[in-house]
Amino acid sequence: MPFVHVELFEGRTLEQKTAIAKEITESIAKHAGAPKSAINVIFTDFPEGTLFQSGEMREKK
Amino acid sequence: MPFVHVELFEGRTLEQKTAIAKEITESIAKHAGAPKSAINVIFTDFPEGTLFQSGEMREKK
Amino acid sequence: MPFVHVELFEGRTLEQKTAIAKEITESIAKHAGAPKSAINVIFTDFPEGTLFQSGEMREKK
Amino acid sequence: MPFVHVELFEGRTLEQKTAIAKEITESIAKHAGAPKSAINVIFTDFPEGTLFQSGEMREKK
Amino acid sequence: MPFVHVELFEGRTLEQKTAIAKEITESIAKHAGAPKSAINVIFTDFPEGTLFQSGEMREKK
Amino acid sequence: MPFVHVELFEGRTLEQKTAIAKEITESIAKHAGAPKSAINVIFTDFPEGTLFQSGEMREKK
Repeated sequence: MPFVHVELFEGRTLEQKTAIAKEITESIAKHAGAPKSAINVIFTDFPEGTLFQSGEMREKK
Repeated sequence: MPFVHVELFEGRTLEQKTAIAKEITESIAKHAGAPKSAINVIFTDFPEGTLFQSGEMREKK
Repeated sequence: MPFVHVELFEGRTLEQKTAIAKEITESIAKHAGAPKSAINVIFTDFPEGTLFQSGEMREKK
Repeated sequence: MPFVHVELFEGRTLEQKTAIAKEITESIAKHAGAPKSAINVIFTDFPEGTLFQSGEMREKK
Repeated sequence: MPFVHVELFEGRTLEQKTAIAKEITESIAKHAGAPKSAINVIFTDFPEGTLFQSGEMREKK
Repeated sequence: MPFVHVELFEGRTLEQKTAIAKEITESIAKHAGAPKSAINVIFTDFPEGTLFQSGEMREKK
């Protein structure tokens, strides 16, 4: 712990995810005082057709 | 919020998921008084071989 | 399976959750063809100060 | 309930998952006194490039 | 990774959870070949009134 | 979407969580190109006695 699950639409590159994971890790280490080695960031990709807001399917932009 | 994660066996169509998402959204808006715009329904499909009940693999019917 | 995790702000009554759970179960049974006995609905309550949208804390209304 | 979500790197066989699910079910039934029929174990596979520790991508070994 | 989230009714003791966590860790290390140091087991307790099966509230036994 | 679930030991203040949520939102907006209004960050606090690593209970520092 901390564990950070990031759910987003599929299509982001490894570089994008790496940049996000680094900054999430920096932020939590700085503000929550957690050692970086304890911070895990896990990405789950979702295809279009899996997210519905206000009852409507949300398109991937 | 509210966020609703629906985990089910793969194989349902977009139409089936849309119908379920609409009714979940209606129900939560009606009974919990949450604005529809705040209600997110997210589907995750699971293939056979990922669910075990009583220690036994559960088949997809 | 299906498992349905409903995350919402704390403060809803057992009656509200029961009504929502019944309708979610009906909807999934009808549209996904899953037996009602296999449908699990799990509620997690979140206090104010746990949800942030656009980087701002979201108040409980 | 109990629901057990197991997140691990992809690549494990059905036999490996079945052996793990059986032992998790035995353990929870024995120590938590839950009936086996109520114990659900759900596996989610993650490809390489989805887990970051200390801000670095974790390789699948 | 592996991360194991165990959701169960509240009321189990630290000893019960420790025994379960040890056996889950042993099992995954043995069958999935994951190093024990990488295995995280996280318990979430649920009060009565949060789980509904077949649309009915499930009592804590 | 994106939804970001942050699981950490209890005890962090609203200020700490707000700072983390802002930076996570900034990072995902910048690197993933998601509109800030679509980014939800949800914190779940865990008491000591809920996290086990290598089969041992992990203390809250």
